[in-house]
Amino acid sequence: MSKEIPYKIYLEESEMPKQWYNVRADMKNKPAPLLNPETHKPMTVDELSGVFCRELAEQELNDHDAYIDIPQEILDFYKMYRPAPLVRAYCLEKALGTPAKIYYKFEGNNTSGSHKLNSAIAQAYYAKKQGLKGVTTETGAGQWGTALSMACAYLGLECKVYMVKVSYEQKPFRREVMRTYGADVTPSPSDTTNIGRKILEEFPGTTGSLGCAISEAVEVAVGTEGYRYVLGSVLSQVLLHQSVIGLESMIACDKYGIKPDMIIGCAGGGSNLGGLISPFMGRKLRGEADYEFIAVEPASCPSLTRGAYAYDFCDTGKVCPLQKMYTLGSGFIPSANHAGGLRYHGMSGIVSQLYDDGLITARSVEQTSVFEAAQKFARIEGILPAPESSHAIKVAIDEAMKCKETGEEKTILFGLTGTGYFDMVAYQKFNDGLMTDYIPTDDEIAKSLAKLPKI
Amino acid sequence: MSKEIPYKIYLEESEMPKQWYNVRADMKNKPAPLLNPETHKPMTVDELSGVFCRELAEQELNDHDAYIDIPQEILDFYKMYRPAPLVRAYCLEKALGTPAKIYYKFEGNNTSGSHKLNSAIAQAYYAKKQGLKGVTTETGAGQWGTALSMACAYLGLECKVYMVKVSYEQKPFRREVMRTYGADVTPSPSDTTNIGRKILEEFPGTTGSLGCAISEAVEVAVGTEGYRYVLGSVLSQVLLHQSVIGLESMIACDKYGIKPDMIIGCAGGGSNLGGLISPFMGRKLRGEADYEFIAVEPASCPSLTRGAYAYDFCDTGKVCPLQKMYTLGSGFIPSANHAGGLRYHGMSGIVSQLYDDGLITARSVEQTSVFEAAQKFARIEGILPAPESSHAIKVAIDEAMKCKETGEEKTILFGLTGTGYFDMVAYQKFNDGLMTDYIPTDDEIAKSLAKLPKI
Repeated sequence: MSKEIPYKIYLEESEMPKQWYNVRADMKNKPAPLLNPETHKPMTVDELSGVFCRELAEQELNDHDAYIDIPQEILDFYKMYRPAPLVRAYCLEKALGTPAKIYYKFEGNNTSGSHKLNSAIAQAYYAKKQGLKGVTTETGAGQWGTALSMACAYLGLECKVYMVKVSYEQKPFRREVMRTYGADVTPSPSDTTNIGRKILEEFPGTTGSLGCAISEAVEVAVGTEGYRYVLGSVLSQVLLHQSVIGLESMIACDKYGIKPDMIIGCAGGGSNLGGLISPFMGRKLRGEADYEFIAVEPASCPSLTRGAYAYDFCDTGKVCPLQKMYTLGSGFIPSANHAGGLRYHGMSGIVSQLYDDGLITARSVEQTSVFEAAQKFARIEGILPAPESSHAIKVAIDEAMKCKETGEEKTILFGLTGTGYFDMVAYQKFNDGLMTDYIPTDDEIAKSLAKLPKI
Repeated sequence: MSKEIPYKIYLEESEMPKQWYNVRADMKNKPAPLLNPETHKPMTVDELSGVFCRELAEQELNDHDAYIDIPQEILDFYKMYRPAPLVRAYCLEKALGTPAKIYYKFEGNNTSGSHKLNSAIAQAYYAKKQGLKGVTTETGAGQWGTALSMACAYLGLECKVYMVKVSYEQKPFRREVMRTYGADVTPSPSDTTNIGRKILEEFPGTTGSLGCAISEAVEVAVGTEGYRYVLGSVLSQVLLHQSVIGLESMIACDKYGIKPDMIIGCAGGGSNLGGLISPFMGRKLRGEADYEFIAVEPASCPSLTRGAYAYDFCDTGKVCPLQKMYTLGSGFIPSANHAGGLRYHGMSGIVSQLYDDGLITARSVEQTSVFEAAQKFARIEGILPAPESSHAIKVAIDEAMKCKETGEEKTILFGLTGTGYFDMVAYQKFNDGLMTDYIPTDDEIAKSLAKLPKI
């Protein structure tokens, strides 16, 4: 028998997870190893430790420990903005007239505006523990940069952010949030790095890309005493930290007897999706329960639904390790989709492997329909969602409407990764009826994939 | 004995208040009656009902019922974004090295970004219940307009917002949030009203004021079939709805054995301060407990600390009822302080009377010191506060530092009314070292007060 479900379930502090869950431990087919970009041999902890903090390098390569303790300092920080509520979307259900039960895990109740803070504090903590002076990173939409700035301010660590130039210029308020938290924000490409200068020379007037910003941040990290590089998605260590989303969700579900039939998340690099589904996937892998997992990506950047599963570069400068992943090719330039967090050419190795094994399904959706769903959700549920998160909303509503047709009382859980307060330029375009959709042609994708490295 | 205090206290749904508390019922000296601007006689419910919904007009004049039931529809809406957490500022205490215990009630976890939603949904609900078509209002900083847009979208009510022109132009993203919620937003002064046209003729190129926007919104409400006017602060009905802040805080305090020594709130029109302190003030008025209440206002608009307690006009057009309040005069033009929500010339009648009776103290603070406190708070507690709320933070930190000197273990509770995500222009000015302070001269205030109406 299930208890009456409140609108919002907040766990007690004592119920919050004390360990992260590492889904790789339960995967039969492990993600393929990261390769050294020069030798094409599997990266070792020692090699990775030149770029990442040592403990993070270890986490990156750890595919056997199912649980890893969350250090007390991180637990304390989590308590400042977590638990995130598991929300029963009573109002949305009623407005849709669906028999489906809809839940969402809302990660937007913190100043970074998204789930990114879960990994930012972990990465900053290990950097601090190692006695480092600071960290570098890149940011596209700005949520990751903000999260990292907050974590670094809290721990007294320096923070250098390379922000994709088009975002730097179009999102000055995001930049100011980072500056308020004491970060040093540089538009990328910049003349502060070799790769930046090279790109500026080759493509004068370029507005930058995530791949290029990554290369600049890595170059500075490797070349500056007491610095390391940190990354907000794609990596297995990030999915590990983000498992706190799924763990809290699962504890809340178990407490109230909620059994999700399907779990939906937007997928850019895979950090939110991977974090949300990991513990549930663990149950599925261990044969304890079954769920349908749906990754939602933009039609303009469809790495899972139209990409190839192959080794590829993670960055434009080709300095990062090679990763086997679903990719559109590191040279793929996605159209100016407003969900900046979903414009990466590749996908988390963990998510890629699970998808390749048929354990996750994927859908691509067009941004106009995504903003229609976002507007509807905002008006009914009172939260203005981030464009990224709205991809999940769109599919959750689609599925709830299918239930209305069939009469099925499915339980739908989706990840609401964040708020759209810094995305009002996109909303304005939508409000003014000026938003357009763009889907790459088969030819465009084939041309990009033809340039994949031969491994 | 007190339980261990978690970082954040969220009440259970079953513990949330079901009635608002009307502090007027316990006040020996009631606030002076609202007067008809033409006859100077006390306003009746019938007269007020031409401008406000009937039930709100009744609430406005009700100074005897201590508790008023919150309708179920409003309770349901509250459940979407409430309870607001009562936060123990462990990190701030540690960073300051103070023996004081600091708590804040955080009202920013909703898309309007502030406590304003508490009254917006109530006012929209009564309008809907009365069978109205829509409501009009004004907005300065934009938090109230956003809150009302959200409430109207939820209930299917039309919403016309007159937004002070300087905000309309400088805060396009606020405007877009309101538009996303379906509101019709007009920069004020506009040519859609008589008063707007008159002001534009008299002061071409003016960037508007709250007093003028109020007059326009009232004119449209009175002149449009099926419309009424709603207001986000100052009125007694608003303080009634906002008592939910104080009630939740008190229930949480009682549950954990927390006994605040002082309760601090920023004060513009008084809605947040009044709402936060009301139930505690009730205890003080009934002799059940004692607290120190501190109202914090900007030095640039010091209605309590430097104004007169007198009848004054609430709006530029002088169409609203006269109210006895602490005021700087309805013609007072505050300097361009970045806390737009604290730039009103007058103060809630309830707060004014309590202040005049010596039950509340007041302090004025300069905005540069306020932003210093805001930045410190953001970095330590992880929440980027609204400039308005940061006035309370400033004084809370000051008081905690006094405790550090004296060794007193005072318990400090303050209201964190909202987030500053739409105030990054102000933060940028502060980050760039370009923020200035302005304090009106005695002569300026005297000149403005000389024009008070003779009642």
